[in-house]
Amino acid sequence: MKGLGIVPNWKKRDEARDLLERIVAFCAQHGIDAYLAASEEVEEIAGGKITPKEEFPGLVDAVIVLGGDGTILQAARAFSGTNMPLLGVNLGQMGFLAEVEPPMLERALQQLLEGSYEVLHRLMLAARVLRGGRTVAEYTALNDVVISKGQASRIIYLDTYVNDKHLETYPSDGIIISTPTGSTGYSLSAGGPIVNPYLDVIIITPICPHLLHHRSVIVSGSERVSVHPWTRQADVNLTVDGQIDFPLQDHDVVQVARAPLTTPLIQLHGTDFYTLLHRKLSKVISRQPEGM
Amino acid sequence: MKGLGIVPNWKKRDEARDLLERIVAFCAQHGIDAYLAASEEVEEIAGGKITPKEEFPGLVDAVIVLGGDGTILQAARAFSGTNMPLLGVNLGQMGFLAEVEPPMLERALQQLLEGSYEVLHRLMLAARVLRGGRTVAEYTALNDVVISKGQASRIIYLDTYVNDKHLETYPSDGIIISTPTGSTGYSLSAGGPIVNPYLDVIIITPICPHLLHHRSVIVSGSERVSVHPWTRQADVNLTVDGQIDFPLQDHDVVQVARAPLTTPLIQLHGTDFYTLLHRKLSKVISRQPEGM
Amino acid sequence: MKGLGIVPNWKKRDEARDLLERIVAFCAQHGIDAYLAASEEVEEIAGGKITPKEEFPGLVDAVIVLGGDGTILQAARAFSGTNMPLLGVNLGQMGFLAEVEPPMLERALQQLLEGSYEVLHRLMLAARVLRGGRTVAEYTALNDVVISKGQASRIIYLDTYVNDKHLETYPSDGIIISTPTGSTGYSLSAGGPIVNPYLDVIIITPICPHLLHHRSVIVSGSERVSVHPWTRQADVNLTVDGQIDFPLQDHDVVQVARAPLTTPLIQLHGTDFYTLLHRKLSKVISRQPEGM
Amino acid sequence: MKGLGIVPNWKKRDEARDLLERIVAFCAQHGIDAYLAASEEVEEIAGGKITPKEEFPGLVDAVIVLGGDGTILQAARAFSGTNMPLLGVNLGQMGFLAEVEPPMLERALQQLLEGSYEVLHRLMLAARVLRGGRTVAEYTALNDVVISKGQASRIIYLDTYVNDKHLETYPSDGIIISTPTGSTGYSLSAGGPIVNPYLDVIIITPICPHLLHHRSVIVSGSERVSVHPWTRQADVNLTVDGQIDFPLQDHDVVQVARAPLTTPLIQLHGTDFYTLLHRKLSKVISRQPEGM
Repeated sequence: MKGLGIVPNWKKRDEARDLLERIVAFCAQHGIDAYLAASEEVEEIAGGKITPKEEFPGLVDAVIVLGGDGTILQAARAFSGTNMPLLGVNLGQMGFLAEVEPPMLERALQQLLEGSYEVLHRLMLAARVLRGGRTVAEYTALNDVVISKGQASRIIYLDTYVNDKHLETYPSDGIIISTPTGSTGYSLSAGGPIVNPYLDVIIITPICPHLLHHRSVIVSGSERVSVHPWTRQADVNLTVDGQIDFPLQDHDVVQVARAPLTTPLIQLHGTDFYTLLHRKLSKVISRQPEGM
Repeated sequence: MKGLGIVPNWKKRDEARDLLERIVAFCAQHGIDAYLAASEEVEEIAGGKITPKEEFPGLVDAVIVLGGDGTILQAARAFSGTNMPLLGVNLGQMGFLAEVEPPMLERALQQLLEGSYEVLHRLMLAARVLRGGRTVAEYTALNDVVISKGQASRIIYLDTYVNDKHLETYPSDGIIISTPTGSTGYSLSAGGPIVNPYLDVIIITPICPHLLHHRSVIVSGSERVSVHPWTRQADVNLTVDGQIDFPLQDHDVVQVARAPLTTPLIQLHGTDFYTLLHRKLSKVISRQPEGM
Repeated sequence: MKGLGIVPNWKKRDEARDLLERIVAFCAQHGIDAYLAASEEVEEIAGGKITPKEEFPGLVDAVIVLGGDGTILQAARAFSGTNMPLLGVNLGQMGFLAEVEPPMLERALQQLLEGSYEVLHRLMLAARVLRGGRTVAEYTALNDVVISKGQASRIIYLDTYVNDKHLETYPSDGIIISTPTGSTGYSLSAGGPIVNPYLDVIIITPICPHLLHHRSVIVSGSERVSVHPWTRQADVNLTVDGQIDFPLQDHDVVQVARAPLTTPLIQLHGTDFYTLLHRKLSKVISRQPEGM
Repeated sequence: MKGLGIVPNWKKRDEARDLLERIVAFCAQHGIDAYLAASEEVEEIAGGKITPKEEFPGLVDAVIVLGGDGTILQAARAFSGTNMPLLGVNLGQMGFLAEVEPPMLERALQQLLEGSYEVLHRLMLAARVLRGGRTVAEYTALNDVVISKGQASRIIYLDTYVNDKHLETYPSDGIIISTPTGSTGYSLSAGGPIVNPYLDVIIITPICPHLLHHRSVIVSGSERVSVHPWTRQADVNLTVDGQIDFPLQDHDVVQVARAPLTTPLIQLHGTDFYTLLHRKLSKVISRQPEGM
């Protein structure tokens, strides 16, 4: 291993700075170059080089992301297409994506150095918005693509198709189209199941449907989900990974399918999804939002 | 019975006009005065008088509302404080409030004439928004008071108290505080129970809570629910009966309690909530929005 | 206060014995007689009198129950009709009924002595089984009356009526008819809401219904629920408070209504349901069964 | 096509006889041999040969099953290992497996004759019960393997592992381990998602868990689920496809994994799962049990 990239969530300055110093110290000790992603908020760390993250490929073997799941979702989109493996160190609460807890940092770096890990590929979704036959927006998501009502508490209607077969028209607050990775996120809040993150499936979950049934539908990763929203009076939005919004217009169609690219995540030997899940479900879910 | 008031949903012009003519004909035949609520959209009906609905008290014994549940919710708020009993004729779909189906109109009017009915009182909610100690908004609701996130798909935090006891902090899309009448509305979509509409209770239901538990909490009609919303980045709105919106600010507190007033609804002999419920649950819920 | 009765769960011998000694010591100090309920398993405690619990009325002012919710449910049925107030000390896990945690025992006794408490009345259910027009079994329940399939994994059909109005025929594993007190018990597991335990309502919750909708229905405490189970091949049982079983036959009808009697529970000043609920929901629910 | 086997549900004698006669007539017209499965209840049909179903392989190209999903589940187990494709004609209610509705029988036979179909393979589960290290029972299931409490309404504890990783200990009424095919059966009643029946996944759904969370967990078809039930006082049963029961003892372990065999189902061109699902969800689910 010749180089490690580091992408911190600077909103958690103190915890991030502590971890950064520990990574730089570890790298110095083992003759590895440490590159810190350039950003407006970046702080100098003795022994670390500040480098635009676009230059990481070629310089580094893996990227350490310091933050909650939100930071990893951002990094996954930023590095999508580079095949750069990511390892998350958890500064958030649930941290389903950031598997390394801060006290275990050095142990994790040691495993990385020794090759005691696998790179596993997480399914991503490609979403596009069709307007009058043309594609007006395209996104890649690691967690989910959500089509939901705008501000006012008004119902919207979502004609939903799988492979052009009509599945259901959901009168609802919206619909979540989730990857297995996203199954422990917003989809879970809306009543969806928990899915092994390495399955090749897509999860469709309506949000507060005005139907008697609320069930998620699990389709194959090779199937395509299309949603035609319609409404008399409400705004409708597309949201990607809870981070990017795009306002939809009447007659827009949203198509969602497995993306050609995946997110490569480092899974250290000795960790696995079910053990992590068991640990997370046993914790009381903390009620403080990130960064407050 | 000397007079009947009529409030139609003019967006359903054809059905409303047909029913209006039948009511006016029935009244003419039985020596009853028929008063049609004045509005911008009102149409002349031979034999009916057009009168501002503010003048109905004194002139009429009851008000017939022609429309879906939305029209009745509006009428309930418009006539709140007058103690005027309402009877709904269903032009919508589910029609939990509008119990008379159009083919049964004359039979219902006959029962009204003969006194073959009871006036039952539905609990309403009084909501007020406190800002820096002052009340900046006050509303009365027959169905529900909803505090929910604005447009973007971001989580909000709702510190929720019953009688100043901390019940839960819901990280969620919002919260529904519902009357028993509202239990078959939005609250049902969010997973709430079905409640006999004449019980003296209030139903608290979180919307997509990021907690493992999703349960509604049923409190007494004599208890007060307070919600303190907080958030880093999202807008938060108060919505009354799905019809009126009020934007909330940081540090606003929403207090909800049983209103001093009720909505008097006419329940014709031979009809009851459980029979209606059974009938509604057996129907496929139609997927077309009102008015499209 | 002249006397205190004590009913321990002897299956939790060590914890029960410790608490008993502390109660007897407290009573000795304050000139109160302590009576220990006679049973096969009872152990002598220096300073306590062993007395059949049937003789408690007249001798004692209140009964302290040492155990989990199960022990209190038993005591509630045993003392039903005596109007004897109960105070539970929690040796179980969730302990919604047993509000006093062991470390707070002396403080609770002091409050009892000083009259710093209220006696609140919990609704109980009266269930009877009609067979060929005759009542063949009668029970009183503080938590719930459950009608469920016997051993084999076969569906049963439950024609369910409220006040002789047909509510629903549930093809299901069974049905739970619960008091507000029982709402945090089995009813919660089957998806029911949490209900303020002092409301005058009854909660109907199907168990795994083969319908698309799973909703609980909340009816008035003054309404009567009747269930007519039918099935081709499965056994059907009535279970009271999860403790007493009665096998049902074809054509049996189970009628459930508010019992004429209530369970008087002591609520110490400074405690309340919502604070207790908040505390319980914040705990990880322990996964060890009682007594193992 | 030289021969067709026929397996009817004789409990639905009249409908089955009518369909049988139509199949035999169609076969006679097209020079195909029709073989009727021998059974105690079989009735002679002019033109059909009565043959033990063990002799179907070699004689017939496909087997037509006349009945509800239960009859197809039985046939799937009976023909498992023969690779004989099945086509179900629906005499039941929901009929997710029996895709042909009776009025479409001749059209379906015509498609069969013309080869206008595909044979799709449904995942089956292999369950075995380990007792003291030895396998004491083995089953194959097309729908589900259920481990549930016996008669009395007592909780059981289910230590559940995926690939020997501890997933959860469910204090509950039981657990359902379901194929995608079974996702629209008992699993749906217990709150599970709807799964495309051709996915290679296994669905784990607890029944009335005494936990705050009720979520299904979706694992890979290549993963193994192990359940260690334990309890103080209740009986525990294993049930296969809702049809076969096996009583479990203390310390038994149930292991469930994808079976080496699949069920080949005929899918006629022009039919697909999502269209079928949409149709089924739109129907009111009938409330009459099969055969009553």
